[in-house]
Amino acid sequence: MTAPVSERNAVVLLSGGLDSATVLAIAGEAGYRVHAMSFAYGQRHASELAAARRVAEAAGVVEHRVVDIDLAAFGASALTDPAIAVPESPTSGIPVTYVPARNTVFLAYALAWAEVLSVEAIYIGVNAVDYSGYPDCRPEFVGAFQVLANLATRAGVEGTGPQICAPLIDLSKASIIRQGVRLGVDYALTVSCYQADVDGKACRLCDSCRIRAEGFAAAGVEDPTAYR
Amino acid sequence: MTAPVSERNAVVLLSGGLDSATVLAIAGEAGYRVHAMSFAYGQRHASELAAARRVAEAAGVVEHRVVDIDLAAFGASALTDPAIAVPESPTSGIPVTYVPARNTVFLAYALAWAEVLSVEAIYIGVNAVDYSGYPDCRPEFVGAFQVLANLATRAGVEGTGPQICAPLIDLSKASIIRQGVRLGVDYALTVSCYQADVDGKACRLCDSCRIRAEGFAAAGVEDPTAYR
Repeated sequence: MTAPVSERNAVVLLSGGLDSATVLAIAGEAGYRVHAMSFAYGQRHASELAAARRVAEAAGVVEHRVVDIDLAAFGASALTDPAIAVPESPTSGIPVTYVPARNTVFLAYALAWAEVLSVEAIYIGVNAVDYSGYPDCRPEFVGAFQVLANLATRAGVEGTGPQICAPLIDLSKASIIRQGVRLGVDYALTVSCYQADVDGKACRLCDSCRIRAEGFAAAGVEDPTAYR
Repeated sequence: MTAPVSERNAVVLLSGGLDSATVLAIAGEAGYRVHAMSFAYGQRHASELAAARRVAEAAGVVEHRVVDIDLAAFGASALTDPAIAVPESPTSGIPVTYVPARNTVFLAYALAWAEVLSVEAIYIGVNAVDYSGYPDCRPEFVGAFQVLANLATRAGVEGTGPQICAPLIDLSKASIIRQGVRLGVDYALTVSCYQADVDGKACRLCDSCRIRAEGFAAAGVEDPTAYR
């Protein structure tokens, strides 16, 4: 039995970047009451969190929780370890900006909250096309987490666990942007840069900035990003 | 190529209870340099953390990290929500002491640390026999996390990801205790009670106390638990 649209809830992982802002709009269009979840994890680009708050407010979410986690304790990533520089030219393989097991940790928290809220869906903005080479942005990873979620929780055991939704997984950045524009996403609110300044101004040089700028160009949409 | 014994590392999830203390000893016997990981998550039985520190020190681990996480923010469990009473008689089904997605969150953090340390194994003391009905203590759950780990991380992608080891999964509490005694585990250092007092003294009434006491009796080992 499906609950009335107004009572259907989803947890949406919201980084404040372009992809997760689009996912938030997609979950809203699907009729879900959205519970947004962001993470403060010692990342350099803390201005993303300010962006997440702006995006959540603009979308009128039911609730927005920022979970404080200490990934910095694990080191080993340019996004959390000040001793590692963010690369400003393309690299091969998995980049140093990879945060160990990041999406696994984020989805685990989302699963915990999802169980408390009895939500139908968890949305995550991973994307396997323009994905910077992160292993935990691939369809196989999302599928494996779905299997885990079905076994890990009381709701999963009872057959009412959340679907793990990754609606951007096969889309190009340009397609994502076109979909977001159709849904009224204001990308000027979002921050994607790996080394944005305190005002959220982007560097234009890191992987994330280049992929984002190329996406706007390919989509034929004016780039609203504030560069420094 | 297998690394020399002295360079083989493992992350061991250590709650300070009977099971994880035994797992720590098993990992040590297997020749691993042990990196113990515990969690402070607003649980009532914070005296378990003091027990974890005692157990880690007694075992001579390389390192013991206590990760601060905010599961209490999710509510909905007698172990984290002061508004829910710990049951003091047997219940059917999944008990209210279940913490949402707890082992998923703990294993996710272990996976992050494992990747940073390049460890060969992650040990977790889950047990499907005397398991209080938690869904994330079953072999299927551990197997699903292994599949996820192989897909989620740089090491997994490169074929050198950690094995998820749950050596207690099929053992009775009595068998666990006998194995621990053989390995020299001092169970007087451990705390299992869901509502231990600040000194770690046990209530004798909760699920965890009853299962533990029955285990010592069945193993024919004197129960060293300090009851209040």
